[in-house]
Amino acid sequence: MEQKSSVKSFGGTQGVYSHASTALSCDMNFAVYLPEGNGPFPVLYWLSGLTCTEENFITKAGAQRVASELGLVIVAPDTSPRGEGVPDDPEGAYDFGLGAGFYLNATQEPWSKHYKMYDYSTQELPALIAKEFPVDAGRAGVFGHSMGGHGAMTIHLKNPDKFKTCSAFSPIVAPSQVPWGKKAFSNYLGSNESAWAEYDATALVAKQPSKAEILIDQGAADNFLVEQLKPQLFANAASEAGQAYVLRMQDGYDHSYYFIASFIEDHLRWHAERL
Amino acid sequence: MEQKSSVKSFGGTQGVYSHASTALSCDMNFAVYLPEGNGPFPVLYWLSGLTCTEENFITKAGAQRVASELGLVIVAPDTSPRGEGVPDDPEGAYDFGLGAGFYLNATQEPWSKHYKMYDYSTQELPALIAKEFPVDAGRAGVFGHSMGGHGAMTIHLKNPDKFKTCSAFSPIVAPSQVPWGKKAFSNYLGSNESAWAEYDATALVAKQPSKAEILIDQGAADNFLVEQLKPQLFANAASEAGQAYVLRMQDGYDHSYYFIASFIEDHLRWHAERL
Repeated sequence: MEQKSSVKSFGGTQGVYSHASTALSCDMNFAVYLPEGNGPFPVLYWLSGLTCTEENFITKAGAQRVASELGLVIVAPDTSPRGEGVPDDPEGAYDFGLGAGFYLNATQEPWSKHYKMYDYSTQELPALIAKEFPVDAGRAGVFGHSMGGHGAMTIHLKNPDKFKTCSAFSPIVAPSQVPWGKKAFSNYLGSNESAWAEYDATALVAKQPSKAEILIDQGAADNFLVEQLKPQLFANAASEAGQAYVLRMQDGYDHSYYFIASFIEDHLRWHAERL
Repeated sequence: MEQKSSVKSFGGTQGVYSHASTALSCDMNFAVYLPEGNGPFPVLYWLSGLTCTEENFITKAGAQRVASELGLVIVAPDTSPRGEGVPDDPEGAYDFGLGAGFYLNATQEPWSKHYKMYDYSTQELPALIAKEFPVDAGRAGVFGHSMGGHGAMTIHLKNPDKFKTCSAFSPIVAPSQVPWGKKAFSNYLGSNESAWAEYDATALVAKQPSKAEILIDQGAADNFLVEQLKPQLFANAASEAGQAYVLRMQDGYDHSYYFIASFIEDHLRWHAERL
């Protein structure tokens, strides 16, 4: 692991690191906010949305202030494998390929060699973090935005003992049923839709709810709400399955980091209280 | 004036606007954060540093949370004239020309036609803001970062009744004595250094201190501290002249927006208490 940058922020340190990922067969960057003190600290994994890198969250969300106060480590990985030899959408679309790993393990050529963001996010990166940073891996949560909200919810539902708390901003809750998800899943996972259900929070919760309470914030003025996000699909399945959740429709807010920044404090306190 | 974007943020509105500037003879963008409610609100002008546009502050500083709480309007203009016909540094350097207007009125060709950021920041923009937004122009302050800290301090010292409060992050306090300032002033203002003193906070405070107390935060790990910023030059002149000020050297902090974000709340409360 190599430190690419380190900046003091709210008494702690905002770092960006690079390492050679085995799961993804490429070099990967990730960001870590480390509060002042010796730890061990509870750790939150932030999963970003389409087009993002490890930089968006740390520059725009304003999370460091509250992470410093609460003594939380926040890890923010990149959103896909990167670099030479990593295939991209043939037309360079923003919603597939680079910047759009969808936190799954691709099974289809040419994606399956590098696009293993599920293994990376759930295994390789947490192992590296536990080794290199003063975290209490027994107190870990996951949260994210849009595609990363999808990642957070599916990763929590599949690993409720490892990622004990979960929240999301504007998540893609039912990728199997919306254009972004259908495009990604058909390419990464193939046409057999039973494989898709393994990475679909709405399908997962119907099968196996977690014991946690999931917090979802959704901007009511979000341009992607009606076509891509559809939080009611998850809410309905969760209610039926007995999954505890809070879905807050936030009047007037859009899909941007201005929305995230406005409510990030609530999410950090939510996780801290439960970890 | 045209609204380019408007996003809900902490209950208020973060907007970006465009207008045809008479002072600068070009179209200019500026950002306005407007808290919830009817106002009239006190108004702060944020002046950004080298290379910035109206976007840097609103995406990275995390000011909206406290501006919302305190009921402050924050206006953040671009840092130079822009567009076709506006001359730039012949070599495209980051520290002169586009993105580097230095908040002065250029007197030398070819800069004098467009580079009138002093008139723009002190006259044209405040008049437009007073006309279009619910501000109490009698309660206005100015603050900024680096080149914009220089702008804030000189503008306050020259107009203490119009911009009543002043603070700065990592300001260029004595441009006449450092490389960034010497390059900009010799090009914009010519070789007669008596003209430079009109835009040099250290020279201005020696001649005419204000009745306000000026807050300066400076990161002690700032790479530009020793060569370009030199806050002690201002502190010495201010002490001698009887200018009240607080200079805080912040251990471990650099020149970035991570530093600004860490202390922006202090600055906003500082201004709000005094306006």
